[in-house]
Amino acid sequence: MAYAALAGLQLQYGLYSAFLGVFIYCLMGTSKDITMGPTAIMSILTNVTMAILLTFMCGVTHIAMSIFRLGFLVRYISHPVITGFMSAASIVISTTQLKKIFGISTPRGFFQTIIGILTNLYKTKVWDLVMGVTCMLILFLLKWMKERWATVKVAHEERVVIKVLRSTMWFIGTGRNAVIVLLSATIAYLITDIKLPIDVRPLTLTRNISGGLPPFALPSFTYDVPGTNQTVSFSEMMQRLGSGLAVVPLMAFLESIAIAKAFGKKNHYKVDASQELLTIGVANFFSSFVSSYPITGSFGRSAVNAQSNVMTPLGGIFTGAVVLLSLQFLSDAFQYIPASALAAVIIMAVINLFDPRGMRNVWKINKIDVLPMVVTFLLCFYDIAYGIMAGIGVSILILLAKHAMPAAKILEEDGNFIVMEIKQGLDFPGAEYIEETLQQQAENGNCKTLILDCSNLTTLDYSATEAFKHGSQALKESNISFRICGLQECNENMLKRMDVVKYGAKFYDDVNEAKDTIEPRTEEA
Amino acid sequence: MAYAALAGLQLQYGLYSAFLGVFIYCLMGTSKDITMGPTAIMSILTNVTMAILLTFMCGVTHIAMSIFRLGFLVRYISHPVITGFMSAASIVISTTQLKKIFGISTPRGFFQTIIGILTNLYKTKVWDLVMGVTCMLILFLLKWMKERWATVKVAHEERVVIKVLRSTMWFIGTGRNAVIVLLSATIAYLITDIKLPIDVRPLTLTRNISGGLPPFALPSFTYDVPGTNQTVSFSEMMQRLGSGLAVVPLMAFLESIAIAKAFGKKNHYKVDASQELLTIGVANFFSSFVSSYPITGSFGRSAVNAQSNVMTPLGGIFTGAVVLLSLQFLSDAFQYIPASALAAVIIMAVINLFDPRGMRNVWKINKIDVLPMVVTFLLCFYDIAYGIMAGIGVSILILLAKHAMPAAKILEEDGNFIVMEIKQGLDFPGAEYIEETLQQQAENGNCKTLILDCSNLTTLDYSATEAFKHGSQALKESNISFRICGLQECNENMLKRMDVVKYGAKFYDDVNEAKDTIEPRTEEA
Repeated sequence: MAYAALAGLQLQYGLYSAFLGVFIYCLMGTSKDITMGPTAIMSILTNVTMAILLTFMCGVTHIAMSIFRLGFLVRYISHPVITGFMSAASIVISTTQLKKIFGISTPRGFFQTIIGILTNLYKTKVWDLVMGVTCMLILFLLKWMKERWATVKVAHEERVVIKVLRSTMWFIGTGRNAVIVLLSATIAYLITDIKLPIDVRPLTLTRNISGGLPPFALPSFTYDVPGTNQTVSFSEMMQRLGSGLAVVPLMAFLESIAIAKAFGKKNHYKVDASQELLTIGVANFFSSFVSSYPITGSFGRSAVNAQSNVMTPLGGIFTGAVVLLSLQFLSDAFQYIPASALAAVIIMAVINLFDPRGMRNVWKINKIDVLPMVVTFLLCFYDIAYGIMAGIGVSILILLAKHAMPAAKILEEDGNFIVMEIKQGLDFPGAEYIEETLQQQAENGNCKTLILDCSNLTTLDYSATEAFKHGSQALKESNISFRICGLQECNENMLKRMDVVKYGAKFYDDVNEAKDTIEPRTEEA
Repeated sequence: MAYAALAGLQLQYGLYSAFLGVFIYCLMGTSKDITMGPTAIMSILTNVTMAILLTFMCGVTHIAMSIFRLGFLVRYISHPVITGFMSAASIVISTTQLKKIFGISTPRGFFQTIIGILTNLYKTKVWDLVMGVTCMLILFLLKWMKERWATVKVAHEERVVIKVLRSTMWFIGTGRNAVIVLLSATIAYLITDIKLPIDVRPLTLTRNISGGLPPFALPSFTYDVPGTNQTVSFSEMMQRLGSGLAVVPLMAFLESIAIAKAFGKKNHYKVDASQELLTIGVANFFSSFVSSYPITGSFGRSAVNAQSNVMTPLGGIFTGAVVLLSLQFLSDAFQYIPASALAAVIIMAVINLFDPRGMRNVWKINKIDVLPMVVTFLLCFYDIAYGIMAGIGVSILILLAKHAMPAAKILEEDGNFIVMEIKQGLDFPGAEYIEETLQQQAENGNCKTLILDCSNLTTLDYSATEAFKHGSQALKESNISFRICGLQECNENMLKRMDVVKYGAKFYDDVNEAKDTIEPRTEEA
């Protein structure tokens, strides 16, 4: 119940961005933990009309992407990237909340925040710090109590008193975030408005929010420059948005999905990417009608959500409804929530997602995958979306590098013949390598027959067939018989269409068949 | 000999960019056809100091790339991309030369040129057109004669007269480009300076070039804004160059290599990418000392070179030397070469590279590879470098898409067990798919044992091992015994480190071994 109060705090961040997206996500989303909110990148846009238009375009783009079934793009976010992202995000968000614990205001950005906190430590607001640290301690204790006492399995014969105590503890432990928010707000209310007649408020409170519901209207597709008679047209606005039209939807999608996947990984459920894409699209589309900034999944709030044991996306409906009601009626009450108490709640939720064990695991299992993880982790401190994109980039580069070096190995060598084997699909990055390998064999010329075992060759593309052609040519010129074995039928047909037979290549079912026909040398050209 | 005159025409395009790069390429390059010249993208830069600095930075970047052995990047330029690029480039360059045949000047860009030619047809300079068309006809005839008569094998008993005639014809045919240039320049000289006293020159000639050698000096790392007292510092210049610092070297390299690969493909030789990279780097580096714009391989001039039967990169030394001499002594003579005659030479050289057969071949052999080819082909009309990059992008997307759908197939199904097979490497794009497949089998629950044949599974990464773990978990929960067969040892170890054994997975050498141990059901958990 009181958990709802927490949700209201979203207002602090993003005007009207909070409620409609949350509603829509809950109706359509597939991750129980995700909470929607305005994207961080949006801070670069200062013009409200443009921002709302971008929200609209984001929605359209996402819906279009989902129509063209581009949800599969998510498959390119590898697990190491998610692990790196999650750990970095938990640190970044903790740090930005830390300044609220100290009551210090700093510029945006991870490093700026750290420097800001360190250089302004002398400005620490003592009461903010006390409130924040106390809240964190209480949260920690409540969580510990719940895990230690309330959840432990016990023998059946338990006294009713203890049972009730246990249940109460479980209840308080579960709703601890709401408890903290309510408690701290009450304290703030007492010391601010009633006890002290002086104007200096000892606690920093969340900003005052202008109440009332936002108007429901189409976003404006033109924009009047204030103070002049000029109107910026739709196409001009589009031009000004420029690459943002592509980057913002992509980043919003990747970030949201990365969060969903991260929580899915943590809480063992799967996310339907196509559905997610459609959901984000619809959420942005309609949010633009209520003057919202572009929205995406929010890491910090999702973490609080997950920690508050919201078990279904239905939590979202509740959240949205409360935000809506709050906007109308309760906006006065929210201003009493101390910023540092809220920060304590967020930090305690988010710190849980820091995952050094997961990171060590990647190292233990596959060293090369540490690279995208570290890249993601480090770049996320600069910008979360860039971190994810860079991580994906590095993962893809590793995959491509594997293709550039197809494992072509000599299995058997005899004065008369050589048996080689290709152990993976052959695509354009590896084509040149195979061509060189074959040409080298042709140059060496220390065998009469080259048998290439392709039974593990899974895919083939045009560039690879051309490599086979050039290889056959070179081998033919050196009078080496070229025997290709164990190809799948479709690949064999490709090579035949490429006329490799004309250049002397012959096909066999397997290596033995190719070897058996060597002996009577007279049969060969 | 006289072929040298042709080389001089490079001056028309790129100030001092021509000679040093050509020298260096000839000493270090690995493609016999490539001729270096300023890149087209450079037209965006208007400030000479900046351009020269960019040349310097290009050189440094290329050299650094070659030190870090990034030449292998070339492997990602697939054959369909080269085919598409070559055909498009031959059309684009022919079109831009066509305007010189008509004597019409148009703005830059393929479409602008076409529109410019069409709308200004009435401005056609008749004598330019006559000269151009005549030159093209003569070139065509000379080539045809050479191929028809001079190169045909004949019986030994041939009269000396015919033999001499044959040789002469071969010589003229081979040197036809030089013949045309000399001839047309002579005509132009006669009708311009001697015969006609009027000022209207009937033929458009190549622009007058200021003679003299460029100074040899370090490029300036600062820049004085003319007319003011301000100096732009090195770091400011760098900032202004911005993304150009990454894009220009990359594009220059890709374009140069694509040209080298294209000619290599046509003339059956291989290009050493690392060496090429180093060469372009050194060429740019030193060219910046002689006030050159960034240089790269030049498609049009390389084509002329190839057509003029320049057989070794040594041709480059010759070219460079003549350019150098010309700059010093002959700059007056060059101005008499008619632009349309030169255009005719370039068109006849370039048109040869249009390769519809190669394009049809791609379609015939592998339909999906038509996509990157067409993308490259079409985008090259907008910008050659973008076309190549987009083509590479599409090729990579196709490769990645293959990974997203690993072929997991049910081979055998029995009430008791199911045998499945994975037929390719398993990396992060396909991990989710396998996880889903395993989970689906767990949900179906219509077997006691799932046997997964991984003998064709070539690679495995962290994400894939995690997919195996989750799959094992799901199967264990459904009481299905999970048997993994034929894994390579390194991959098996990865899975073991991931603790899949804890989740009930067992390893076998092959499918038969896994099947044989099923029968006595009591052995299983």
